[in-house]
Amino acid sequence: MDAAFVLYDRMTALDLVGPYEMLAQHPEINAHFVGARRGPVRADAGLELNATTTFDELPQPDLIVVPGSGFWSAVLEENDALVAWLAAAHPNATWTTSVCTGATLLAKAGILAGRPATTHWLARDLLGELGAVVSTDRVVVDGDVMTAAGVSAGLDMGLTLVARLFDEAQAMVVQLFTEYDPQPPFNAGSAEKAPAEVVEFARAFAAGR
Amino acid sequence: MDAAFVLYDRMTALDLVGPYEMLAQHPEINAHFVGARRGPVRADAGLELNATTTFDELPQPDLIVVPGSGFWSAVLEENDALVAWLAAAHPNATWTTSVCTGATLLAKAGILAGRPATTHWLARDLLGELGAVVSTDRVVVDGDVMTAAGVSAGLDMGLTLVARLFDEAQAMVVQLFTEYDPQPPFNAGSAEKAPAEVVEFARAFAAGR
Repeated sequence: MDAAFVLYDRMTALDLVGPYEMLAQHPEINAHFVGARRGPVRADAGLELNATTTFDELPQPDLIVVPGSGFWSAVLEENDALVAWLAAAHPNATWTTSVCTGATLLAKAGILAGRPATTHWLARDLLGELGAVVSTDRVVVDGDVMTAAGVSAGLDMGLTLVARLFDEAQAMVVQLFTEYDPQPPFNAGSAEKAPAEVVEFARAFAAGR
Repeated sequence: MDAAFVLYDRMTALDLVGPYEMLAQHPEINAHFVGARRGPVRADAGLELNATTTFDELPQPDLIVVPGSGFWSAVLEENDALVAWLAAAHPNATWTTSVCTGATLLAKAGILAGRPATTHWLARDLLGELGAVVSTDRVVVDGDVMTAAGVSAGLDMGLTLVARLFDEAQAMVVQLFTEYDPQPPFNAGSAEKAPAEVVEFARAFAAGR
């Protein structure tokens, strides 16, 4: 099974590395790190990740994972090659998936028209404008498309994918290896749970960027 | 504030990317990706990350983050330059931290002698043999050293670090931006919670490797 982990400049590293860590160790998965060209991309907080396969070299992956970006509006304009590849590859893929604002790239490729999907809480309006039926769920499964909410939701999506691709026992083994027994020190992980002033600050910061 | 995110071959990418994502966007943090030499390291599930600074170039970081590896015994023998750098850099650092079996590298550098620390659940015996007082907590803070349990525990540690370095409100902003409102689809994230056959399989797999 060929898995395409998509890389592009200014992506959010954890969006990709969450599902990667849940999936790529599996002996039946061949992990490919795919970009417009081989070489480094610089994530939105500075980490460099290397694309080792080009889109042209992997036209028919079985599984596609698209991360989002803290600069989602700009990124949506900068990645025509990725969007074209997604549109062509999706019909042959067993699963096409995204984390965070990666969903907006799927939408631009025409994959989410009229379909339920989730994204980062700050990008819900944009995803709706791009034609998706926006869900606030953490992980949304719709046929052969799976989308996750912001950044860390990719861990939950990764385990859900392992269970669908293989079985629940194997997903639990992965959960145990990654010791995914979360204990966040605060309860501020959603706009509904965070204090109002925290939500306000986050909205203002994102609008300023 | 100079933050050293340590890279080495066969590291577990999520061990590093969890705390990186919580910390590196902060305007007061200068993130450095530090290795024995510049260039790519290959993580234990295939992803390439680039070291862009050498240990020699950053002798006195304020914050150190050391990831673990799925090949922890081999890695402990392969990284003398890292261990020597840790031993020299730690006394000047505000925080020296590890995720997963990164704690065994701290211990080898003499940083954990007689101190409480946590690690991946499968490496607890090894960490004890290396002189630490092993805790089963998810995040352990002891003076200027912070250690996290396996892989995904780095997200919880990252938020704990933001709160200690800055304040709780800023940690909550980061939690909201990363939408860290975890909803694992299974309850198998620790050896105490996972079904016995899942724990048994994981132990046998690790022993075989």
